[in-house]
Amino acid sequence: MHDVTPFVANIVAKSGVGIGTVHVHVIGSTGAVGTIEYEPGLQQDLPEILDKLMPPSPEYGHEEAWHDGNAHSHLQATTLGPSVSVPISNGELVLGTWQQIFFLECDVRPRSRTLVVTVMGDE
Amino acid sequence: MHDVTPFVANIVAKSGVGIGTVHVHVIGSTGAVGTIEYEPGLQQDLPEILDKLMPPSPEYGHEEAWHDGNAHSHLQATTLGPSVSVPISNGELVLGTWQQIFFLECDVRPRSRTLVVTVMGDE
Amino acid sequence: MHDVTPFVANIVAKSGVGIGTVHVHVIGSTGAVGTIEYEPGLQQDLPEILDKLMPPSPEYGHEEAWHDGNAHSHLQATTLGPSVSVPISNGELVLGTWQQIFFLECDVRPRSRTLVVTVMGDE
Repeated sequence: MHDVTPFVANIVAKSGVGIGTVHVHVIGSTGAVGTIEYEPGLQQDLPEILDKLMPPSPEYGHEEAWHDGNAHSHLQATTLGPSVSVPISNGELVLGTWQQIFFLECDVRPRSRTLVVTVMGDE
Repeated sequence: MHDVTPFVANIVAKSGVGIGTVHVHVIGSTGAVGTIEYEPGLQQDLPEILDKLMPPSPEYGHEEAWHDGNAHSHLQATTLGPSVSVPISNGELVLGTWQQIFFLECDVRPRSRTLVVTVMGDE
Repeated sequence: MHDVTPFVANIVAKSGVGIGTVHVHVIGSTGAVGTIEYEPGLQQDLPEILDKLMPPSPEYGHEEAWHDGNAHSHLQATTLGPSVSVPISNGELVLGTWQQIFFLECDVRPRSRTLVVTVMGDE
C-alpha cells in the first residue's frame, strides 16, 4: 500500500485550482484507490481482511481461463474501486488529519502502475 | 453484468471534451457501476462472491418490511457503489487494456435501468 | 446512518447549476458516504452486515498501536468509501425514487463530522 497524498497535493498546488475536486484513478484492473488512516496497523489490516473475505482460490471462473492466480485480486480491486475524488478548498486537499489517499495493488505479483490525477474547478 | 465501456466511450467522443472526467451513474438502489476486467470468468465470480458475502436471507430488516427478497441486493449494490468516474485524455477514456466499465444489476429479478453519463472538462 | 439527500438537494438548488455533478465527501477516516434505499430495515442491515464481514476484534494491527477499538470501523469506511458523486439535471439530483444519499459513521463512539459538498457544472 502506498500513501499518494503528497503527490496529489503537489499536483493540486501546481494546478492553480482553488476550489473544486481532484480525481485520482489507477489504470489497471487489480489496483485500488481510496482513503484510509495511513498507519502501519491498517496498512496490514486492509489487505488481510480483503484476503479473508475474497481469498485466493483456484476455483474462481477467472482461474479456469487464465490460471494466473489473481482472480481474488480482481474481485478485491473492483470492490474497493479504481478511484476516489477529494474536494479542494483554498487550493488544498480537504482531508481529515488521519485521512490519506492510498493506492493498493491487490495483484499477487509486483506491478508498475500509473495513477491519473485530474484537477477540476475554479481559481 | 454488462460492459458499458463502448457506450460511454461513444458519448465521450461525441462530447468534444478532450481532457476531464466522465461520471457513469445508475438510477436505482440495486444497481452498481464500477470497473473490472470484463471476461466470462469474472462476470461469474463477482456476483458469486457478493452472494457469498451478502447472501439472500429472509432475516434482514428490509425483508420484514418489504418481503421482496432483495435485501442482499441492496447491500451488495451499496457496497460496490452506484457510480464511477474515469479520466478522459485526448478525447478518450483512460482505462487499462483489461479494465472495462461494468453495470451490474444485483436485484433478484430483471430490471430496466437508466445510466446517466456526465462528461466534464475542457476541449 | 443519516439521510443527507435533502441537505445536498438544497445546496444544489441554491448553486444555480442546472447540469453537472455534485460530490459529497466526509472528512475523517471512519465515515462513509454512498447511496441506499433509506428505510428502517436497511438502516439496520447495512451496519450489521459490515460488522459481520469486518467484525470488531483486538487482533487487528491497528489495535496493537492505538487500542481504541475501532480498527474495523476504519476497514468498513474504507470499503464503502468516503464520497459519492451524483448527477444533476435540470437543477435537481438524478436519483431513483428509492435511492438516497446516506452518511454512515462506522466508529464505535459518536462523532461530529463535516460533509463537504461540491457542485460542478453549467447553468
